[in-house]
Amino acid sequence: MKVVVLVGGVGGARFLVGLKALLGSDPGNEVVAVVNTGDDVWMHGLRICPDLDTCMYTLGGGIDPERGWGRLDESWTVKEELAAYGAEPTWFGLGDRDMATHLVRSRMLRAGYPLSAVTEALCARWEPGVTLLPMSDDRVETHVVVEQDGEQKAIHFQEWWVRHRAELPARSFASVGVDQATAGPGVLDAIATADAVLFAPSNPVVSVGTILGVPGVRDALRKTDAGVVGMSPIIGGKPLRGMADACLTAIGVETSAEAVGRHYGSRKCSDDGVLDGWLVHSDDRADVEGVAVLPVPLLMTDVDATAEMARAALDLAGVDVG
Amino acid sequence: MKVVVLVGGVGGARFLVGLKALLGSDPGNEVVAVVNTGDDVWMHGLRICPDLDTCMYTLGGGIDPERGWGRLDESWTVKEELAAYGAEPTWFGLGDRDMATHLVRSRMLRAGYPLSAVTEALCARWEPGVTLLPMSDDRVETHVVVEQDGEQKAIHFQEWWVRHRAELPARSFASVGVDQATAGPGVLDAIATADAVLFAPSNPVVSVGTILGVPGVRDALRKTDAGVVGMSPIIGGKPLRGMADACLTAIGVETSAEAVGRHYGSRKCSDDGVLDGWLVHSDDRADVEGVAVLPVPLLMTDVDATAEMARAALDLAGVDVG
Repeated sequence: MKVVVLVGGVGGARFLVGLKALLGSDPGNEVVAVVNTGDDVWMHGLRICPDLDTCMYTLGGGIDPERGWGRLDESWTVKEELAAYGAEPTWFGLGDRDMATHLVRSRMLRAGYPLSAVTEALCARWEPGVTLLPMSDDRVETHVVVEQDGEQKAIHFQEWWVRHRAELPARSFASVGVDQATAGPGVLDAIATADAVLFAPSNPVVSVGTILGVPGVRDALRKTDAGVVGMSPIIGGKPLRGMADACLTAIGVETSAEAVGRHYGSRKCSDDGVLDGWLVHSDDRADVEGVAVLPVPLLMTDVDATAEMARAALDLAGVDVG
Repeated sequence: MKVVVLVGGVGGARFLVGLKALLGSDPGNEVVAVVNTGDDVWMHGLRICPDLDTCMYTLGGGIDPERGWGRLDESWTVKEELAAYGAEPTWFGLGDRDMATHLVRSRMLRAGYPLSAVTEALCARWEPGVTLLPMSDDRVETHVVVEQDGEQKAIHFQEWWVRHRAELPARSFASVGVDQATAGPGVLDAIATADAVLFAPSNPVVSVGTILGVPGVRDALRKTDAGVVGMSPIIGGKPLRGMADACLTAIGVETSAEAVGRHYGSRKCSDDGVLDGWLVHSDDRADVEGVAVLPVPLLMTDVDATAEMARAALDLAGVDVG
């Protein structure tokens, strides 16, 4: 069985852990994660891929589970020394262990390897047990139009998210480079040949939404024979984690499970919708035309709970895990 | 008074500390160090300048005085993580604190700044109290022709020096890129306008020798009105530190204070000589035609001893420090 999952960072990574646990070590089961790279950024001359790294570290056992990003037992010497030089930016959490990942990646990118090949090379160490495919090998970066001191300006997503903690009101998002981007090697093919396609409960705007913006991805989702099922990252009108509400507000979507389900839309009943099924949290409800909505626990409190959530998603997609 | 010193790494840096102490804080005194960059290397996508950094850290109070290179209170997390990725080379000592220097430098170089401007920017933090001029902004790298398993091959100086500890017999040295190199901004002018030019007791082959190979430097030394005085790095037939004997053997020069003095040669009595004076250690003797030889303590055991050695060198160059 081949399951394709569209994922962002922390939430996506945790969901993958549960899905992996559910599918077990059966060599006939394959999980392919299409990972958002819109958060990627050059900093201090290094290419940083937050979502890819969060997935890789989480699945490979290297993550700091408290923070949800970066490495366990991390130290911050390089970051402090960079600050002592006055090297900007100083607000980004660049750990010493983490640094090696960025060094290897940046060196390979500069030597001409595409991000997909770099990711494969890094995963040779971490053995995530899930194929991690960057959504694109091309540079696609989410920028945020904000208003500061009465002026509108566009800043990199990381600056908005990490430095300003999404507290500067976002007017809109721009996915810089997306029009010229090509889906990463294997991405469209994985969707076309999948038995089920799931949207992790990741940010619907700057994670899953960015992946959907890559030319060819939406089309592949609408054409695949697989059932396509999403999981709501909004529970009781609030984001489970992160600051998805600030992103939804900027694009004019209400922060509710129903509104997000409608935003993704139905494959059957709308011209650009992508869902067959939509999982909402137990106490939530949603009415999305042409989409089967099912309330189940979506809290991902532990691996078992997450595995049950994955089972429900696959079931709704028409795949019986047994 | 302007004193120009040709320097390599550890020995050169220690000499500069003594010279700085001797000249005090008189704003009329200026020390300009022309620093060897032939040891520089790209590793893990970072530009590493061992001699510039050793001088900067030593003069700025950041050096590990035991090792003689790298930062005090250093940790090695990034290095260990790079090794966990199997990223080569693993034999080079790349510390976490040190890493920030390489990151800032590499980022600036890639942005188009010349090494001299980068060095000035890094020194804004360390305030070495000495102007550190790279011998050249161009890429000049010392390679070593070695014989291994019956085959001759050229390896980077760092690989020979650090990985093989200079134990692989060197057949010859190649200063790759030196023919196309230009002396760094201010280098030739500093020599021309100096009151004295000194050669630190640095490696005469791969430190001072490499600087002398930069087009224009030897000529500037032969033409300057300043007295030019060298200090022997060979004491009692052995290098004071490092592995200068292995380098001297490769170029057919005996490991003795006299042989090194003759190798530099006299400005007056030879066609390409560069010395007026030559300091040898107290118990050593040397006969170098056309060069005034003076035996004084050259051990640099502490700052005061080094300052006295600097005083003797300046005295021999015709400058009275008072």
